[in-house]
Amino acid sequence: MSQSNQIVRVALGARSYDISVGANNLDQFAGFVLGCGPANHAVIVTDENVQRPYAMEVAECLGGDGVETAVVAIEPGEESKSIEMASNLWQALLDLHADRKSLVVAVGGGVVGDLAGFIAATYARGLRFFQVPTTLLAQVDSSVGGKTAIDLPAAKNIIGAFYQPSGVWIDAATLASLPEKEYRAGLGEVVKYGVILDADFFVFLENNVDAIVGRDADALTEVIARCCRLKADVVEKDEREETGLRAVLNYGHTFGHAFETLSGYGNLLHGEGVAIGMCCAARLAARLGRVDEAFVSRQRKLLEALGLPVATPDIPAEKILESMRHDKKTAFGKLRFVLPDRLGHVELVGDVNEDDVVAALKE
Amino acid sequence: MSQSNQIVRVALGARSYDISVGANNLDQFAGFVLGCGPANHAVIVTDENVQRPYAMEVAECLGGDGVETAVVAIEPGEESKSIEMASNLWQALLDLHADRKSLVVAVGGGVVGDLAGFIAATYARGLRFFQVPTTLLAQVDSSVGGKTAIDLPAAKNIIGAFYQPSGVWIDAATLASLPEKEYRAGLGEVVKYGVILDADFFVFLENNVDAIVGRDADALTEVIARCCRLKADVVEKDEREETGLRAVLNYGHTFGHAFETLSGYGNLLHGEGVAIGMCCAARLAARLGRVDEAFVSRQRKLLEALGLPVATPDIPAEKILESMRHDKKTAFGKLRFVLPDRLGHVELVGDVNEDDVVAALKE
Repeated sequence: MSQSNQIVRVALGARSYDISVGANNLDQFAGFVLGCGPANHAVIVTDENVQRPYAMEVAECLGGDGVETAVVAIEPGEESKSIEMASNLWQALLDLHADRKSLVVAVGGGVVGDLAGFIAATYARGLRFFQVPTTLLAQVDSSVGGKTAIDLPAAKNIIGAFYQPSGVWIDAATLASLPEKEYRAGLGEVVKYGVILDADFFVFLENNVDAIVGRDADALTEVIARCCRLKADVVEKDEREETGLRAVLNYGHTFGHAFETLSGYGNLLHGEGVAIGMCCAARLAARLGRVDEAFVSRQRKLLEALGLPVATPDIPAEKILESMRHDKKTAFGKLRFVLPDRLGHVELVGDVNEDDVVAALKE
Repeated sequence: MSQSNQIVRVALGARSYDISVGANNLDQFAGFVLGCGPANHAVIVTDENVQRPYAMEVAECLGGDGVETAVVAIEPGEESKSIEMASNLWQALLDLHADRKSLVVAVGGGVVGDLAGFIAATYARGLRFFQVPTTLLAQVDSSVGGKTAIDLPAAKNIIGAFYQPSGVWIDAATLASLPEKEYRAGLGEVVKYGVILDADFFVFLENNVDAIVGRDADALTEVIARCCRLKADVVEKDEREETGLRAVLNYGHTFGHAFETLSGYGNLLHGEGVAIGMCCAARLAARLGRVDEAFVSRQRKLLEALGLPVATPDIPAEKILESMRHDKKTAFGKLRFVLPDRLGHVELVGDVNEDDVVAALKE
């Protein structure tokens, strides 16, 4: 019910907006949109997996409140974040007579949100944009922060814009239909927030493993709202990745990206790579004397309890190093890592010795 | 010489930037760029008409100051503002290892500036962008204000972003090589600024017709800097066309767009259509009792003295009306016009009677 939605305000001056988190609330979405300003035309971008029932529910809700609404469904998967698909959507908006007063609404996961956000940012020099994320990863990560993007064949997310939505509407109940592997992968990012920013939240997760694994809507509403607040705090201070603060969100990602890339597409989801990467980063921090072994095992236990992989994939260390050296977050070939110094706090550590990195790969 | 450049500051808070206007100053460009921040990699986007000598001069200047610089030349013409060309440029930036610290520099006219600006706005979520406009229209209009865009086949400028440059560097001497028709078309927009915003500037133009027609560098520097200041004043108050103030810049454009469109591509340049459109708008304003006949003939005389067309093309009035009704600046099918009430001042006038519009087409 929307009356019990938790509101996370993202304070960015004139571009401030609300993230509203609840359960079974899709039939309340139109009120949220109209509360942000007048609207009489919307184009929903979704994918074929979530078109029914979620995008249709959103469309019916908007239509019921007098907003003329069309639904455009793309094929699911990262391949849809292409120039070709962007071309199709730009043309679709033109064919639907979208003008500057039209809205774009993304209903789906990160691919849909990234692509639809890029279209909203660039059609008629910017349409108002709403997100209705329906995967855990999108709800706690990609729908917050204003990053929009499409890919070139050789470079993910290389074309895009920082473009803040007018609002984000989250229905935790949509997670009930998410495939198990994808749901658990999203939990990798959830644990990350506790480790990097909020020890109390980490304890909350430890105390609520059963409810979270069971996808209890109340527990999830709490978890999602907390993650959105934590990410919003970072984004408010470093909207465009200029001060370096936003880099703390990359905890586990330098290792994790290498694991994702080298495991072959689809074998290791992003959140799974991050979970394993966090284990490596924690061991690296322990080697460098920043945390103790108890920290390392406590983090691993929570990840395991939530069903996430924690073992380093069987890939030669030299290949992993090589992949990390080419990571775009690497500065001038020097390996840099976001490393914890206590639960709830991390720092960016530059110029790490490669021997320590290799040692941290192994338990 | 850059020491005598006139500086027009565009005040947009954190996104403020300078427009620097002079003559024979391309060899000073690197100092301007480096004065805006550190730079070690630049990609110049230009077209095959201005690649030599202007883009090469800019490249040599940057290279001489230690900025590694590549030049990418596109085919001249509006057809290059396409998704295909944008794809090629995104890929070119990737191949040139452009990263977030790279610069994009547009050297050319409006097509190059619009396209390169869109690429800068969207590659790696935004690269720093400099404009070196080499046509009069780009120097006084399209390089100021932060509009970037590409076209869909059926809709000009429909894909784009508001994206302010880090700086604009204008060499009035580049106009020496501009084709006569294109140069004079640019003067249409110049006269427009006087009519809509600055009676003193209109008088300055009347008093300096010979120098302007003769492309005297000092006179042009004065003209360009004044136009940039006038446009910047408007853009500062309505950066994203939200308050309606920016609409005053469309004086002569509702008629002018119709003439451009109906005359067939290339027969009537934008500035030429605007010049004829200004004559129609002035007659319409006189019919509505907003200005007297002396205003109408004074404006026409200046346009004629500068070599601009002033006679309405031989097109049936009903066709012109139909085209104006479909103009994107038309609100809900009602014809709206920017009309003068005295030299240096215009207002947006809604719901104009079509009989008056038809009468204003004829002298």
